[in-house]
Amino acid sequence: MTDTHKIAIVGGTGDLGSGLAKRWARAGHEIVIGSRDAGRAAETAAKFNEDAGTTSISGLENADAAEAGEIVVLTVPYENHAPTLDAIRDKVQGKIVIDVTVPLMPPKVRTVQLPEGGSCAKAAQAQLGDDVRVVSAFQNVAAAHLADLEHDIDCDVLVCGNDPEAREVVVKLSEDASMKAWHAGVIANSAIAEALTSALIFMNGRYKIDGAGIRITGTPGSAAKS
Amino acid sequence: MTDTHKIAIVGGTGDLGSGLAKRWARAGHEIVIGSRDAGRAAETAAKFNEDAGTTSISGLENADAAEAGEIVVLTVPYENHAPTLDAIRDKVQGKIVIDVTVPLMPPKVRTVQLPEGGSCAKAAQAQLGDDVRVVSAFQNVAAAHLADLEHDIDCDVLVCGNDPEAREVVVKLSEDASMKAWHAGVIANSAIAEALTSALIFMNGRYKIDGAGIRITGTPGSAAKS
Repeated sequence: MTDTHKIAIVGGTGDLGSGLAKRWARAGHEIVIGSRDAGRAAETAAKFNEDAGTTSISGLENADAAEAGEIVVLTVPYENHAPTLDAIRDKVQGKIVIDVTVPLMPPKVRTVQLPEGGSCAKAAQAQLGDDVRVVSAFQNVAAAHLADLEHDIDCDVLVCGNDPEAREVVVKLSEDASMKAWHAGVIANSAIAEALTSALIFMNGRYKIDGAGIRITGTPGSAAKS
Repeated sequence: MTDTHKIAIVGGTGDLGSGLAKRWARAGHEIVIGSRDAGRAAETAAKFNEDAGTTSISGLENADAAEAGEIVVLTVPYENHAPTLDAIRDKVQGKIVIDVTVPLMPPKVRTVQLPEGGSCAKAAQAQLGDDVRVVSAFQNVAAAHLADLEHDIDCDVLVCGNDPEAREVVVKLSEDASMKAWHAGVIANSAIAEALTSALIFMNGRYKIDGAGIRITGTPGSAAKS
């Protein structure tokens, strides 16, 4: 790891936030858990520190967490996506926002139902404006695997965003959480990872898999920038 | 292989059609190559037979090929998708149609641009009607790898369609062409594979990969039907 960051995880009390927070705290980052309730955020942070054997996880109300973070991660249920973006918009200007949202629409969570416009993360980029660098990642990793710090995660991360440098920060953060990550193109390409989750849930059922994932195949040569 | 089929490949003179035709002919299937020009179809079929050491590949005009096939595969450029479906609609009623179309929109082929409604194959199902069982597959396999009969294909196939039995036929056909395939849910889920191709093209450039692909991870248990 080359850099440590102060990372806010908005909606970070869930399984996905739990795994990311603990893994990143162990890797040396400072973490602020955001929740709609500041007390709940603080309690959760204390528990995460205990689980991970760290002291660098704290908790705040979502907008305060977003303000405190140098990088802001969004892990909220799809129905809270747009209102949460509204609530944090002013706090994240100039920052990298990592959008982890999967547009699942219960009860048909095994059917791809991408939002109008094609992608959650693309909508987030439009809603937050051009001064925010939205990067999408982590939609396909089984939250329970991520939350188990001993679990060797057998799923690659597709990292999408319009700014290659912001993507590279997220590729490094993936590695800090022991995941292999790939630059996968512009923010519109987030549709792939957002859609894929429904098929993985389908396959978990059909093939009795505990957390299906993907690996990218093919042997990379020199990592030219593009 | 349990069953042999008479398979028409509409638009089958391209690289993707070439690989599927030769691999399936070698596996014992009867193949009809379709092209807008019957003479070109026949010439191409002769060449494919020579390449594959087979005699079971013939060629016809697209609509005639579609009529002759018990299973009909569609491998046409995106701009020809809707008109070709119109041309074969009457010929494919009651059959399985395998849609391989990727909605690439040059020049931005590295950017996901899914069609209105979310997916090519879903649109094909709507256009052909409920008596046709549309299944989508093979969008992510590098055509050049497929066309090289000695190439060991390091890419899984996502098989989407509303009818599980039709999907199972396509899973077996994938195996006949030496590819690992997975049931991946309803036809709307084809959006995943249709979108993924743009990211794979992006990665080919960024990482200097000759034909990036995907593998599904996770250990299947018993293959329950769903």
